[in-house]
Amino acid sequence: METEMAMLSLDNPVFVTYMITAGIMLLKLMLQPWMTVYRMMKVRAGFRSPEDAQKSLINPTPSSDQLKPNEYVERSRRMNLNDLESIPGFLLAGFLFVLTGPSLLLAQLLMWGYVIARAAHFMAYSTAQLHDIRATCWTLSSLPVLAMAAYALLSGLSA
Amino acid sequence: METEMAMLSLDNPVFVTYMITAGIMLLKLMLQPWMTVYRMMKVRAGFRSPEDAQKSLINPTPSSDQLKPNEYVERSRRMNLNDLESIPGFLLAGFLFVLTGPSLLLAQLLMWGYVIARAAHFMAYSTAQLHDIRATCWTLSSLPVLAMAAYALLSGLSA
Amino acid sequence: METEMAMLSLDNPVFVTYMITAGIMLLKLMLQPWMTVYRMMKVRAGFRSPEDAQKSLINPTPSSDQLKPNEYVERSRRMNLNDLESIPGFLLAGFLFVLTGPSLLLAQLLMWGYVIARAAHFMAYSTAQLHDIRATCWTLSSLPVLAMAAYALLSGLSA
Repeated sequence: METEMAMLSLDNPVFVTYMITAGIMLLKLMLQPWMTVYRMMKVRAGFRSPEDAQKSLINPTPSSDQLKPNEYVERSRRMNLNDLESIPGFLLAGFLFVLTGPSLLLAQLLMWGYVIARAAHFMAYSTAQLHDIRATCWTLSSLPVLAMAAYALLSGLSA
Repeated sequence: METEMAMLSLDNPVFVTYMITAGIMLLKLMLQPWMTVYRMMKVRAGFRSPEDAQKSLINPTPSSDQLKPNEYVERSRRMNLNDLESIPGFLLAGFLFVLTGPSLLLAQLLMWGYVIARAAHFMAYSTAQLHDIRATCWTLSSLPVLAMAAYALLSGLSA
Repeated sequence: METEMAMLSLDNPVFVTYMITAGIMLLKLMLQPWMTVYRMMKVRAGFRSPEDAQKSLINPTPSSDQLKPNEYVERSRRMNLNDLESIPGFLLAGFLFVLTGPSLLLAQLLMWGYVIARAAHFMAYSTAQLHDIRATCWTLSSLPVLAMAAYALLSGLSA
């Protein structure tokens, strides 16, 4: 096994693969709330806190209807919750996986497989495709994370 | 203090304890949504997106009732949300804790204590035990994470 | 570029900055549910699971009204969900950012900027300030995480 110093170095192609895919997924995680903000501002609705229906610069014509659930906004919130159930798990399982010293090919397959599956899931969810399509994308994104977590566990158990 | 190279090595028993408990909790985190999927498919209900009540291979006899909250499914969703509030915190606090170079005994107590408390919480929640029982398990799972986070903070402050 | 051994050492001031700010935010993440617990116990309401409205030591006079949403409790839950959308992202982006070997000044600006913005967001949210104020705090907390994630991604792409 290599030393960890080598493992967490940008000279290690497995770590570079992680750094790139983790960076992409972190941006996705942090940008989804901006999609919610954009949608809330566009329809001036879907607010969640009572004080959000008060008159202010960003809400010049308030109404209590603004506090009702709005499907256009709620969809982005559900996408965000789905991200929360998946992306931190990917980032943490991926990091432990890097520390087990896997082959570059396996790391690329699992990490890029995850990124592609989540991109497809995003497109399916935001355009309201059939449940079957979204569920398939979600499943394909779940399996690489489960595999990396299992890999880390087995690596710890056999140490 | 040891070097970090030694700290993140599978030669370091504290890191091995982390790798094993983190691997278990990552699997728990990623498998809870599968319990939600299993329950949704079993009762063909508890869907959240309008398009999920359309006719498809996995939903041959759709109905708008499928979009109403279903307690059997919602329970698994609440368990998932509870995981999200706890497991990423454990994984990240545990990792920082490893880097502070703690004693093996303390690491084992805190990390295995967390795993056991979360397993008990899962059983109490999924079988709908009294609030008192679930709250006790939850408290016992919260304290080790708070301890490890405080330990990391103090370690940083005294550096 | 420094070696990673130096990067994850408490001799590295960038890592010390991360350890301290990450420790603070981990405590925040894990203490917000305790605010929800405190509020639930104070008003004996805002419970979420059917079994929570049963007679027990912590609920001597149960009522089905206890299962209705309670704004005082829900506010803390929304604050917790907001934490979940932000803090794990900060912790993970910050860690990758440390591994890119940034300047101390930039790390301090981004990490302490995040902590201060989240503290302001907490105060604005818990005291129900105008949406504009809370949104400004939230934006100021989102930008440092996006910056660190982008930094990590670019660092991986240029490796």
